[in-house]
Amino acid sequence: MEKAIYIAGTGMTPFGEWWDKSIRELMDEAVEKALESAECNALDIDTIIVANMLAESTSNQAHLGPLAANLLPHAPPALRVESACASGAIAMHTACGLLESGRSETILVIGVEKMTDIAPSDISTALMGAADAEKDAPCGLTFPGIFGLVASSYMNEYGLTREDLSLVSSRHHANAAKNPYAQFRNQVTPENVTNSTKVADPLRMLDCSPISDGAAACILSTKFASSFRLAASQIATDSVSITDRASLTSFPATKDAMSKALKEAEIERDEINHIEIHDCFSIAAVINVEDLGFAEAGKGINAYKKENSSLTINASGGLKACGHPVGATGVKQIIDSVKQLHTSKKQFALTQNFGGACASCAIHIIEQV
Amino acid sequence: MEKAIYIAGTGMTPFGEWWDKSIRELMDEAVEKALESAECNALDIDTIIVANMLAESTSNQAHLGPLAANLLPHAPPALRVESACASGAIAMHTACGLLESGRSETILVIGVEKMTDIAPSDISTALMGAADAEKDAPCGLTFPGIFGLVASSYMNEYGLTREDLSLVSSRHHANAAKNPYAQFRNQVTPENVTNSTKVADPLRMLDCSPISDGAAACILSTKFASSFRLAASQIATDSVSITDRASLTSFPATKDAMSKALKEAEIERDEINHIEIHDCFSIAAVINVEDLGFAEAGKGINAYKKENSSLTINASGGLKACGHPVGATGVKQIIDSVKQLHTSKKQFALTQNFGGACASCAIHIIEQV
Repeated sequence: MEKAIYIAGTGMTPFGEWWDKSIRELMDEAVEKALESAECNALDIDTIIVANMLAESTSNQAHLGPLAANLLPHAPPALRVESACASGAIAMHTACGLLESGRSETILVIGVEKMTDIAPSDISTALMGAADAEKDAPCGLTFPGIFGLVASSYMNEYGLTREDLSLVSSRHHANAAKNPYAQFRNQVTPENVTNSTKVADPLRMLDCSPISDGAAACILSTKFASSFRLAASQIATDSVSITDRASLTSFPATKDAMSKALKEAEIERDEINHIEIHDCFSIAAVINVEDLGFAEAGKGINAYKKENSSLTINASGGLKACGHPVGATGVKQIIDSVKQLHTSKKQFALTQNFGGACASCAIHIIEQV
Repeated sequence: MEKAIYIAGTGMTPFGEWWDKSIRELMDEAVEKALESAECNALDIDTIIVANMLAESTSNQAHLGPLAANLLPHAPPALRVESACASGAIAMHTACGLLESGRSETILVIGVEKMTDIAPSDISTALMGAADAEKDAPCGLTFPGIFGLVASSYMNEYGLTREDLSLVSSRHHANAAKNPYAQFRNQVTPENVTNSTKVADPLRMLDCSPISDGAAACILSTKFASSFRLAASQIATDSVSITDRASLTSFPATKDAMSKALKEAEIERDEINHIEIHDCFSIAAVINVEDLGFAEAGKGINAYKKENSSLTINASGGLKACGHPVGATGVKQIIDSVKQLHTSKKQFALTQNFGGACASCAIHIIEQV
């Protein structure tokens, strides 16, 4: 990093179904908590970046930058960043640029999404905006369908069994049971996953992250120091349409961003103790573990077959069990990484947040200093 | 500016009704022209920022960053910035941060919007996303309605006549007649404006910028020098809802951004020879001229009563006559400023691009070096 960027404050709403709260109210709750946790106060915020994917479709509300800015008394300059489900982490990356340039000293990044109070078919259509509207959507594909194809390809290529795949969501639910901010804190057995309703064969309902409401806010500062700083912030891109991919069983954007992130942080992969990865569907978690280099290709499931004492995966419950209000997820992953480092006293955590079928990917490395 | 940021290449589609071109095709055309005009080539682009407001609502397409990145052979890291009708200029501002931070050396900023192939009522609803969905939209207001209130307030406060207001669009049309990229190149007399169909009293059809398709691309670089650089890039914020405003006859975000921009560029206002201002409605142009400090409050119309030889206003035709594909406008303003400086051999031009009723505002000063 060009400058030391500290995580000076964090706050989030519990993720869940918040029919009685508007986007503005969700943001306000997260922002208030972030400010409470910080050394700085509201007037120290000189820029706001809102991460959001769906508000235009689901709430007829664009222009979330100024809408959020007006939660603070001085309405600082503000903008919105969108990169589908990677909006949160890509907003954090954008904040890094503005901080390192010296244009900003203290930025409030707010990830927010309100998804549960519109019809499932409408939210499904809106989410397909993360895929290619000319190449993917006209075939009738939805994201469960796309990741169903990914899972089928992976099972065919590497022999992953349905029973083994069920370990992923089962573990994430077990982790979420300890997280008071998680949408689903119930334990589910691998058998529960395998026997849940079929959504897009071979994926079952419990392979899929839920529709969620929630907000997460993070204050990044070069001025107000804290015990946590960003050691790396990297983004990468791939084709939006799955029809343009050489393979469905690995996501090159993750590999690209990861390699740049390790170089930026000047660390080795095995120095990382906690990872929060983008398990929009269980199969994505398996592939992510491999693309991040924590397992060989085809062996990602091994990370779920035994507890690895030196590496926690989605200790928050991940997207599956903590919830996935899409614009908020990338910010929330960083908040949870801070919590995990605080508890474990370890030095490094990593977050991986992607959009679509990993057409955009952002990786952050968080360091306890 | 922390670093010299050059405008290394520019390109745009004509603005108009492009029913036969998709968002991807519009972007591709603008990008190809920008690359043709530049010293660098496609592989020198290390980051892409897409400015867009409406594609999720109008084309079911989010995730425009990677979609645009795939127009280049190496699909560089990409993101989308949105701030309603100010998306274009706020994307340029975001690019400045990434360039000054050293994270990027050469950024392709693409503004794009496709608005004409959906029903007018749908585009009107989508555009209301720039206002406050909880405070403004439920009253049945549309943007012509909001600016109708602005015009009524202004006329009441300053005695502006309907006949005088008609000078604005008449001038912008006369300017557009010389611009081959303009959507409307027909001359209209002030009488034509006054007698055109009433839209939201006192505003007539010819007071309102049109619904447009188009794309504009600008290559910004700290590495590839050119004869044009950004001397200032500043943004400011105001309340999204007009119900939270102290006045409807002046937009404080313009004043705020302007004061910061002059300071950043280290110039006086009278050193500026060309301005491209955000005339989404004719009354906005009058107010903008005042808020930018080129006229006293209540006297903005004087700039349209006589040609001012030292200052051109919307020589491109502005939003009214050149067209207003909302995400593209802020980028296109900078492209036109470069053209104007090139022709006039003058040193400074200024662009003002705002979102909603100036809830977000971005000002750029362009210098010929």
